[in-house]
Amino acid sequence: MVYQYNGPLSNLISELSRLPGIGYKTAQRLAFYILSMDKKNVQSIADALVDVKENVHFCQRCFNISSQMECDICSNVNRNKEKICVVSEPKDLIAMERTNLFDGYYHVLGGVISPINGIGPDQLRVKELMKRLLDDDVKEVILAFNPNVEGDATILYLSRLINPSGIKITRIAYGLPVGSDMDYADETTLSKAFEGRISL
Amino acid sequence: MVYQYNGPLSNLISELSRLPGIGYKTAQRLAFYILSMDKKNVQSIADALVDVKENVHFCQRCFNISSQMECDICSNVNRNKEKICVVSEPKDLIAMERTNLFDGYYHVLGGVISPINGIGPDQLRVKELMKRLLDDDVKEVILAFNPNVEGDATILYLSRLINPSGIKITRIAYGLPVGSDMDYADETTLSKAFEGRISL
Repeated sequence: MVYQYNGPLSNLISELSRLPGIGYKTAQRLAFYILSMDKKNVQSIADALVDVKENVHFCQRCFNISSQMECDICSNVNRNKEKICVVSEPKDLIAMERTNLFDGYYHVLGGVISPINGIGPDQLRVKELMKRLLDDDVKEVILAFNPNVEGDATILYLSRLINPSGIKITRIAYGLPVGSDMDYADETTLSKAFEGRISL
Repeated sequence: MVYQYNGPLSNLISELSRLPGIGYKTAQRLAFYILSMDKKNVQSIADALVDVKENVHFCQRCFNISSQMECDICSNVNRNKEKICVVSEPKDLIAMERTNLFDGYYHVLGGVISPINGIGPDQLRVKELMKRLLDDDVKEVILAFNPNVEGDATILYLSRLINPSGIKITRIAYGLPVGSDMDYADETTLSKAFEGRISL
């Protein structure tokens, strides 16, 4: 029989390997690092893990993460209620907020349409979005998804669904990232940049 | 003020970022994954973390990880007590055991000599190794370190230290990894392979 890690260490390695992007080697490296850490610090990681499951909830309005019933953005009455930006995940909301450009509210879909992963409109918070569009005084819906096949499918689906309501629908621009080099851009990005050219 | 993750999630992200090789983006990805996991599974990761600190100790003889005072290898009387293989970390011991070639005992140094990181012989378990070499009936010491500058420095230091005792000292071979292509080997590896050529 080949000699193996025993007991708690082997258990920790297999627990860590369950996390996405963490393979056996990384889990092993992390486990040895954890073994060398102060007990206090290890305890605080363990506490943070449990705490996040116990105390993080989703905003009942926009489905952003929140520790209250409504997230900080939804409970802020000073934002522009005429605009809703639809994103896939809370982290996209954070990315958008970092730009400091958008002053409206958000709606977190909880994913994008992806038939290959069995995710259709019913698995997403589409119904909740449509309800908000009916109730609120929304004038513009901005669709902000990652530029890929699933993102495009979601944009197509949502725009067809929202179109009859007469609300203005926009999507964020695809094109060359600032600071990049045209020469190194892939064909699809450059095509999108060309198609999306802006008159001066 | 830029909108940020609040409370438990931001806390978990910063706790995870403390681990080696886990930057902010990875920590964020893991945190969102943990948020989507079953509470039971999150609890078992948290338990595994604390458990490893509480129940993993070092073997008092060879400094391998162990849940008892002596590790499984040191307490196995059927192994060859004439050979000691010196490694840097417990994971190198595991790698060596996987070959099923070595039937002696081990000594885990706890690192390699690395002046740039302030690690000299006093920070390693060199004294404990020398004591074992004096007490036991050791005929051969095999030095098995990663082939790099620190490994070589440690080999040089240990071989000078052990040499007066008359015990045979060997190091594992450097050369081309099996299945590789000579054409793609770096010059240093190929030089080592050439220097270490074996007569047939």
